[in-house]
Amino acid sequence: MHPDVAFPVWSSERARRTESVIDRLLPPATEPPHRLHEAMRYAVLGGGKRIRALLAYGGGELTDADPAVVDSVAAAIELLHAYSLIHDDLPCMDDDALRRGKPACHVAFGEATALLAGDALQSFAFETLAGAALPEACRAVLTLARAAGSHGMAGGQAIDLGCVDAGLDLSELERMHRLKTGALIRAAVRLGADCGRPVDADGNAALLRYASAIGLAFQVVDDVLDVEGTAQSLGKTAGKDAVQRKSTYVTLLGLTAARERIEALRLDARAALSGFGARARRLGELADWIAARTH
Amino acid sequence: MHPDVAFPVWSSERARRTESVIDRLLPPATEPPHRLHEAMRYAVLGGGKRIRALLAYGGGELTDADPAVVDSVAAAIELLHAYSLIHDDLPCMDDDALRRGKPACHVAFGEATALLAGDALQSFAFETLAGAALPEACRAVLTLARAAGSHGMAGGQAIDLGCVDAGLDLSELERMHRLKTGALIRAAVRLGADCGRPVDADGNAALLRYASAIGLAFQVVDDVLDVEGTAQSLGKTAGKDAVQRKSTYVTLLGLTAARERIEALRLDARAALSGFGARARRLGELADWIAARTH
Repeated sequence: MHPDVAFPVWSSERARRTESVIDRLLPPATEPPHRLHEAMRYAVLGGGKRIRALLAYGGGELTDADPAVVDSVAAAIELLHAYSLIHDDLPCMDDDALRRGKPACHVAFGEATALLAGDALQSFAFETLAGAALPEACRAVLTLARAAGSHGMAGGQAIDLGCVDAGLDLSELERMHRLKTGALIRAAVRLGADCGRPVDADGNAALLRYASAIGLAFQVVDDVLDVEGTAQSLGKTAGKDAVQRKSTYVTLLGLTAARERIEALRLDARAALSGFGARARRLGELADWIAARTH
Repeated sequence: MHPDVAFPVWSSERARRTESVIDRLLPPATEPPHRLHEAMRYAVLGGGKRIRALLAYGGGELTDADPAVVDSVAAAIELLHAYSLIHDDLPCMDDDALRRGKPACHVAFGEATALLAGDALQSFAFETLAGAALPEACRAVLTLARAAGSHGMAGGQAIDLGCVDAGLDLSELERMHRLKTGALIRAAVRLGADCGRPVDADGNAALLRYASAIGLAFQVVDDVLDVEGTAQSLGKTAGKDAVQRKSTYVTLLGLTAARERIEALRLDARAALSGFGARARRLGELADWIAARTH
């Protein structure tokens, strides 16, 4: 692909590429246990914006990584993300019947199979990373495991559980989202960048600042879309936050200030990239895209 | 510890050691998110036979591994095992209220927290392995991930789900157990042995034969104990198989033949070790112990 292609062309090509890598890596549904493999494939393939995979490829472009090396990293992150969506949608969690525009995994396959499909996808994410030809596969496993665990995604989810009806203030909300969605987004940028040339300490700090800003921006946009979007545009249930009486950026700041916050975070993410020059083009475009997304 | 100490002394020392390693590795319950960390610690610490950890230490003795190196492997396997028990006990799976002689994790902490504690323990098992000073940590992650995934433990669990009331024949039952409990037991022996000197191809084949035999023996004993044991002696609900009308070694073979099968598997495991000499002492004793266990 020519390096100068427009962002929509680049991002759709990379999203299709991710889909095909995951399709190739996952056991076929014809392989036993059939129903488990079918549920795993159902939950990961054929949908999703692949934002995390795109961030990994964007991180890779920053360090001149070979996209073929980034492939495993992008796939592993999407596998892990898909596991978390299955478990989040379960009746004992968010109890959501709709995901990526189709019935949630437990609606399509039953709760027990969905639980196991999530469990197996988490294992498979680590299997994918550990088996990949990466410069430092073990460090990559460590980065992803920390992003997924009790000090990352699962921890953020636990804080979220504890605060329904409780009412968080803005700094508590931010702390929760830094873990719940932010940790995996930061890991995506980091793991992608780690596929190429080493980055110095200043560069790493800038990369972390970028990833933290877009991670939060992503979540503020989510809160705005939950108010403004429809189930059809989102591919998931809209208006959930109000029903669950959750604190969100919209309830705490109001719509106008939430939109201003998104723009400030986008500019901060852009500013963090200033030292990287043209290599940061895709990460910059991803910041714009995340801030402007409508689904 | 003197190498000649009797098996009960060796095994209790190693079990205590595992407990203390896990206790040190896991985040303290005082660290947020408190309830999640509390649930994780509740599910892993203060109970369990630590058979998988002992098998890892036994595998390590076979290859003269430093027990301090085996520590991380033993801990990672027990963390992964504990996650699987939490999820197995959930209402949508086996719906069991009792585990290791105390209320199951979801009874003590609620379903959502239990689900997340299991999820976070799986991540933490891989974090532990990837961060350990092992000869080949990445290969270890790969081995554990495969043992945990859809071609291992989660796959066996999925087959088990599909066959309640269905009635398996003996070879189907064996295939299910080779995945459901066998995969992690084989990984424990393998990962422990990998902490020391390399083993040649014949040695690896013998080790796999040993691990496969004790893995099955472990399960046949489980089926016998489900009939003969009490909740008090087992620390979990007894008589579950009959209630769930599951095929077991006892329903398919009868009690007498099931006991003969255990003895044949024990002898096969012992025979597989014959080429290793005195270094295989603990693995041999573990085979005897697994065959003779009463809880």
